[in-house]
Amino acid sequence: MFLETVRSEGLAHLSYIFGDNGKAAVVDPRRDCDIYLDIASRHDACITHIFETHRNEDYLIGSKELADKTCAQIYHSKHLDFHYGNAVSEGNTFELEDIHLKIIETPGHTYESISISLTDKKFGKEPVAVFTGDALFIGDVGRTDFYPDRAEEVAGLLYDSIFQKLLPLGDQVILHPAHGAGSVCGSGMASREFSTLGYERMCNPALRKTRDEFITYKVNEHHYKPPYFSTMHTLNLEGPPLLKNLPKPLPLSVDDFEKAMKEGMVVLDVRSPEAFAGASIPGSIAIPLEMVSSFAGWFLPYDKPIGLVVDQYEQVEAAVRYLIRVGYDTISGYLEKGLRKWEVSGRKYETLPTIYAGEVKRRIQAKEDFTLLDVRSKEEFEKGHLPNAINIYVGELPHNLDKLPKDNRPMTVFCSTGRRSTIAASLLKKSGFERIEDWLGSMSACSAIGCPTGE
Amino acid sequence: MFLETVRSEGLAHLSYIFGDNGKAAVVDPRRDCDIYLDIASRHDACITHIFETHRNEDYLIGSKELADKTCAQIYHSKHLDFHYGNAVSEGNTFELEDIHLKIIETPGHTYESISISLTDKKFGKEPVAVFTGDALFIGDVGRTDFYPDRAEEVAGLLYDSIFQKLLPLGDQVILHPAHGAGSVCGSGMASREFSTLGYERMCNPALRKTRDEFITYKVNEHHYKPPYFSTMHTLNLEGPPLLKNLPKPLPLSVDDFEKAMKEGMVVLDVRSPEAFAGASIPGSIAIPLEMVSSFAGWFLPYDKPIGLVVDQYEQVEAAVRYLIRVGYDTISGYLEKGLRKWEVSGRKYETLPTIYAGEVKRRIQAKEDFTLLDVRSKEEFEKGHLPNAINIYVGELPHNLDKLPKDNRPMTVFCSTGRRSTIAASLLKKSGFERIEDWLGSMSACSAIGCPTGE
Amino acid sequence: MFLETVRSEGLAHLSYIFGDNGKAAVVDPRRDCDIYLDIASRHDACITHIFETHRNEDYLIGSKELADKTCAQIYHSKHLDFHYGNAVSEGNTFELEDIHLKIIETPGHTYESISISLTDKKFGKEPVAVFTGDALFIGDVGRTDFYPDRAEEVAGLLYDSIFQKLLPLGDQVILHPAHGAGSVCGSGMASREFSTLGYERMCNPALRKTRDEFITYKVNEHHYKPPYFSTMHTLNLEGPPLLKNLPKPLPLSVDDFEKAMKEGMVVLDVRSPEAFAGASIPGSIAIPLEMVSSFAGWFLPYDKPIGLVVDQYEQVEAAVRYLIRVGYDTISGYLEKGLRKWEVSGRKYETLPTIYAGEVKRRIQAKEDFTLLDVRSKEEFEKGHLPNAINIYVGELPHNLDKLPKDNRPMTVFCSTGRRSTIAASLLKKSGFERIEDWLGSMSACSAIGCPTGE
Amino acid sequence: MFLETVRSEGLAHLSYIFGDNGKAAVVDPRRDCDIYLDIASRHDACITHIFETHRNEDYLIGSKELADKTCAQIYHSKHLDFHYGNAVSEGNTFELEDIHLKIIETPGHTYESISISLTDKKFGKEPVAVFTGDALFIGDVGRTDFYPDRAEEVAGLLYDSIFQKLLPLGDQVILHPAHGAGSVCGSGMASREFSTLGYERMCNPALRKTRDEFITYKVNEHHYKPPYFSTMHTLNLEGPPLLKNLPKPLPLSVDDFEKAMKEGMVVLDVRSPEAFAGASIPGSIAIPLEMVSSFAGWFLPYDKPIGLVVDQYEQVEAAVRYLIRVGYDTISGYLEKGLRKWEVSGRKYETLPTIYAGEVKRRIQAKEDFTLLDVRSKEEFEKGHLPNAINIYVGELPHNLDKLPKDNRPMTVFCSTGRRSTIAASLLKKSGFERIEDWLGSMSACSAIGCPTGE
Repeated sequence: MFLETVRSEGLAHLSYIFGDNGKAAVVDPRRDCDIYLDIASRHDACITHIFETHRNEDYLIGSKELADKTCAQIYHSKHLDFHYGNAVSEGNTFELEDIHLKIIETPGHTYESISISLTDKKFGKEPVAVFTGDALFIGDVGRTDFYPDRAEEVAGLLYDSIFQKLLPLGDQVILHPAHGAGSVCGSGMASREFSTLGYERMCNPALRKTRDEFITYKVNEHHYKPPYFSTMHTLNLEGPPLLKNLPKPLPLSVDDFEKAMKEGMVVLDVRSPEAFAGASIPGSIAIPLEMVSSFAGWFLPYDKPIGLVVDQYEQVEAAVRYLIRVGYDTISGYLEKGLRKWEVSGRKYETLPTIYAGEVKRRIQAKEDFTLLDVRSKEEFEKGHLPNAINIYVGELPHNLDKLPKDNRPMTVFCSTGRRSTIAASLLKKSGFERIEDWLGSMSACSAIGCPTGE
Repeated sequence: MFLETVRSEGLAHLSYIFGDNGKAAVVDPRRDCDIYLDIASRHDACITHIFETHRNEDYLIGSKELADKTCAQIYHSKHLDFHYGNAVSEGNTFELEDIHLKIIETPGHTYESISISLTDKKFGKEPVAVFTGDALFIGDVGRTDFYPDRAEEVAGLLYDSIFQKLLPLGDQVILHPAHGAGSVCGSGMASREFSTLGYERMCNPALRKTRDEFITYKVNEHHYKPPYFSTMHTLNLEGPPLLKNLPKPLPLSVDDFEKAMKEGMVVLDVRSPEAFAGASIPGSIAIPLEMVSSFAGWFLPYDKPIGLVVDQYEQVEAAVRYLIRVGYDTISGYLEKGLRKWEVSGRKYETLPTIYAGEVKRRIQAKEDFTLLDVRSKEEFEKGHLPNAINIYVGELPHNLDKLPKDNRPMTVFCSTGRRSTIAASLLKKSGFERIEDWLGSMSACSAIGCPTGE
Repeated sequence: MFLETVRSEGLAHLSYIFGDNGKAAVVDPRRDCDIYLDIASRHDACITHIFETHRNEDYLIGSKELADKTCAQIYHSKHLDFHYGNAVSEGNTFELEDIHLKIIETPGHTYESISISLTDKKFGKEPVAVFTGDALFIGDVGRTDFYPDRAEEVAGLLYDSIFQKLLPLGDQVILHPAHGAGSVCGSGMASREFSTLGYERMCNPALRKTRDEFITYKVNEHHYKPPYFSTMHTLNLEGPPLLKNLPKPLPLSVDDFEKAMKEGMVVLDVRSPEAFAGASIPGSIAIPLEMVSSFAGWFLPYDKPIGLVVDQYEQVEAAVRYLIRVGYDTISGYLEKGLRKWEVSGRKYETLPTIYAGEVKRRIQAKEDFTLLDVRSKEEFEKGHLPNAINIYVGELPHNLDKLPKDNRPMTVFCSTGRRSTIAASLLKKSGFERIEDWLGSMSACSAIGCPTGE
Repeated sequence: MFLETVRSEGLAHLSYIFGDNGKAAVVDPRRDCDIYLDIASRHDACITHIFETHRNEDYLIGSKELADKTCAQIYHSKHLDFHYGNAVSEGNTFELEDIHLKIIETPGHTYESISISLTDKKFGKEPVAVFTGDALFIGDVGRTDFYPDRAEEVAGLLYDSIFQKLLPLGDQVILHPAHGAGSVCGSGMASREFSTLGYERMCNPALRKTRDEFITYKVNEHHYKPPYFSTMHTLNLEGPPLLKNLPKPLPLSVDDFEKAMKEGMVVLDVRSPEAFAGASIPGSIAIPLEMVSSFAGWFLPYDKPIGLVVDQYEQVEAAVRYLIRVGYDTISGYLEKGLRKWEVSGRKYETLPTIYAGEVKRRIQAKEDFTLLDVRSKEEFEKGHLPNAINIYVGELPHNLDKLPKDNRPMTVFCSTGRRSTIAASLLKKSGFERIEDWLGSMSACSAIGCPTGE
């Protein structure tokens, strides 16, 4: 019996493939699903079952794509009208040689969420593992803000799913959730990716509350809802379009790249914040590579082609995976390695001044006149921030530009470490703000050297 | 916080590397230790601690090798006089950023065996994982036959280690033992490589016994002790010789290979049983590639060079790893791909007739006169065997050739599936037996088609 | 400016990709064309031109497949009615930055064969390389037997193409033909894959003849024409079906594999001759992996699914490439690793006795009664053979079974080294011959030990 | 017979491995010699011969390293007192199965330079390839400035070596020199890496001269002689120290990195020019990764440890190779991925303003007051430069800082494309210059948009 976890960086998405003696099942596959076929081949197994724990808002499910490449059946909850696959409900069971699987309905995050328990028939009837989707995470629980008019009801449902359905499986059960730390689906997750129901029962802060406390806590929790969530939701219900192959963007010459820009191509620069600061194409949007899946959906239109700026070819392949996972399938091409050819062509490029913590501290202490723009989430901001800092979450920046001062003072953009600030800085430059500074290091550097923080 | 399991096939050995925020620790590293450096690099971490749960008999520990390539310290029990590293004892603790480790003395398998519990300080004081070495496996417990004159004492020690030290850590604790299914260190292990203390408490057959039942069970258990165990033991106490690099055997021409054979080189054929049966070099020992670590130590001398016969170059690299893990460092070279050049040189090669279950059954039913040699373990044999079959365990065959009939009847060699039988067949041919047949499929095929089995 | 050779083992096919400053061209791409995209990416180049030197008989051209994945144009001769791409003729030129290409019509192998000369504009007007397709090889020239009723005419055309078109380009020109040693398109090719027009002029035996001698030599040359040649020819004219992706065969359980066999699946065993000899599925056809592209077309039907027998998964991927290159796109699946599961299922498997040169020699000298079947080509046979050996070329064996003795004597099958003999042995066993022996080593071993050869 | 070219990027060094039927030879191996073993294994060949065409100044020869891992013999010219290997002279021959090699003394670049011709015995006595070391390149000839007091003599020797020894081998001979475009051993080399003696005879500009013209041309040629050349020379005569393994630098925490800097560690930043411009550690030296082998020897001391700054781990491995090839074996470690952890630690980092061609042009036209520092070679400068630009070659910058203006005007540093300018800018910042600007695009961008150039 084997079980492997497939991490999809960027989404902090966890999917699972397990099997026994030539048969295998996958839980919540991602759309670039070649990896499951590779793992199955390594174990000489045929993928026969695909389970979806719930509709998903933050990425496109890969089950149709994977089913197309195997002869597997897709299973999801009967409580939502998926236009493909097979409906299952509480208590349904599946057998893969010595593996016994059982469906457990665990609504709360969404109404149709299911969990799946795994029992090793060779060793008895106790389950040894459970796949919980977005119901129970390691160190946190799923968000419950998708039905705003029924917030208390769904928070209560989640509590009951955890306390009446999951925890009773036993302390010994290993927990396999659909997300790890860094996901937009919960902010308190542990960086540790291994846990058990017993450990969560004892140590997960969200589970140390009474039902009422839990509901109050969940109802007051704040999550951002990026615009692409509804696209994901819709496509996941219908079944995302089949890719068959990953798109393979071609290298574009500087001339062709510029021509495509003029015809509407959006430029996505996935290089490091430092490289973007050093030189970038005017009008490009910076999203450092590993953040593409989480942030593209806030800023990139679905109806325009995308042109990539990278340091090296490997980044193209990664960017393509990160983009198609959230439904961006029309990637026109990439500008040849880095910006070099653009630079030698004599074209204009821009630089983004960077600033370090000591200089920000000095300015604050010297009461110099400049704008501090904090693009962290409301939640992070409220835990501690710089005096006089303006807070607009990076994702909501495009719709809130009018809240920024229009004067000629420098505007220092920052977040927690200096990556979301780079995204924000690129958006501001694209919108015509001229005196933008990117604070690499941001609030973390601030804490390290003892900047003043206020309420 | 990351944690990765490194499986060493052939030994069914499991080692672990885990870390947090730039620091990492390794438990029971293998000797070809490049993989830990690679994983650490991937996590941007420096290996600072190496733990050995116990002296080992079945392979060479890689801690000295790994320490040589990092600046890590080695830690093992104070209850044995290791000639390197640092001694630890019950209750010692180590901190790697948010990871808290604690030494738990768990004697039984050996006197100096330790376990190490892992706590995530961010989430409280409960341990979330434990590394148990050869004390507690998934589905089984460690063997206790290394001190034959104190058999009951050590079995009792192991019981107490498990029930008084390990299980009290809590049902929620994830279990990380040093071996998985297929190891010579225990025969009842699950093929499943994930479990918890709670699950073992409930489902591990060895833990469903009283202390007295447990001791009786362990004392009556039978394990083979290959001759290389004492070599491993001695070298592990002293610290195995540093390899620095994996040996890189060179291709040998047919002439050079034959010349080396005449000068004493032992020929190890790691091809598949089918290929060995089809054609082989006279006098060669067959050990199918993935069985090399487990069986080389029974048959290969430590003071002679080894020459490999492979199908393709990748098998050379694997064979080298499997051999150096059990201390065979002098690998002269390999005969160029497969046997082809040997064949076209006009040299004699041998074939090994194979036989399938239906034919064996027919012969038995027809009461034909032939010898059935069962090379499975005594334990397997006793669970059910063919009428009139002789049982000599493959490992003990070289010293028991006089127990075999010297007549001219065919001798059908078999085991459970047809791999150990191929090893045995090669040994018998090398020893001059001429009418050897290899029964591919062996007892498994027998069961499938309904051969007669008796006592 | 870069130029890389892509070797397709099995076909001994050579294709080329070259380019300069962001643009690239490919000559005679194979059907699994991902490798050209990878090389182009590595050189940051876009493939803009694809050239076909001629229709091909021995494999499916990959130009349509490659064009589908780039925006390249396909070019081939105007003298044949290809149903896709663009027609070119003598003197047409193409520019890729500093590269200047010129079309040279070089009929003979086929009427529409073209060559392409390459000039580096930075260094003057002399060509530095030429792509000759199947007109001029290293150490040989293309076969001219495709228009049997105009044999002399086409041989003369080839002579003139070489002497009046190619050699006049200059001794300094590096030669890039479409095949290397081992191809079915010529038997005298050098194992060396680098040469120049000057070197060929001086050292190629076929070019040391007068025009008349050349024609006589070519007209009397003998080549086999496998049945699949006409399929290749037809599909190449129309444009082979688009694959988009390589087929990814799934692992089949023993039960499913046997069921598919009963429904008509052909079993192709690509393991080594030794492994096939040791144990094989009754009725399977053995073609050692690297020979699949050359020999599948003789024996496998195009209208039945194919099931693979392999030693390890990597062989599946290779076998798929080798099969689709000659148009076998319906590969059902593969039996899990090797024969092991078949063996343990208790099913019948067969062995193929092997024999070495010394034993054959002994039998001949002892005048024992047995049949010697030589499956080498007529040409090889005529250069020297064993007394009383029957010669039927392996490819023609299925249609000549009636020429074999039907008695009960052993039949020793051999070729030059023991690979084609394994193919032949599998075919004979499949056809019901029972006393087949495979002579691994064959005539090469024979020469090595001094067997008697006669006329 | 196989022949593969091994390119060592950065050095533009070409080495060769070729062989036949199980034996192989290597010409001018690099120090990280694992690649030759891999290629030999792929061809099932044993490396038996290693040839050095000459002592080398620009890198450490890997022959001792490679001999240590095989049983090969090393061969070099008898005209220099190498402290290892075997001396050969004009006319010595070597046989590797069908390959015949012949030593040709070709002095000029150095006195002891040899070439080696290769003949395929199966096809006659004409050579088909020649390895020319630094005597004859593709599009250029070797430099002859290593014996400045005998400049005319050695230039004449080189002419005679080419015209009396090499070209007479015949137009048909394929040329395999020791360097390609980008090497410090010659500036006129073609980017094309394939040529023949015939093509060079016709198209190499250096060979279109009379002997006198050639000598005058060579004597007046200007080459830089980096300080590390003498180190290479000395070590190559003695035999470079054995590495056994590539150094494997460990990740250093920000604290450890800074501590090591204080103790004398030199910081080498191999990231892209853009990333270095965006943020860098104060005092670090920037050498973009692929330029490390060529430029490290100008700036890095041999007696201090080196600390690396990289974007990702792969760059560490590449940087190590590039450094050990020129004798830097003490690499302490690398700062974890990019600068991120440095930034969040609150430590000071620096930015390097970048400037694009349009702005430079505007300033020149507006007659603004700023310094233009051109760090290209004297040769490049003389072919065309900006008005009032100061020219100091990047390599010679450290010893010529006193030639730069000490005023407070901005200093715009440039070269041909913006890479050497980044190296120079980092050196200037390290030396205390404060208003440095890096002109990415440099003179190439200048030409593209039509900047004024004057004498």
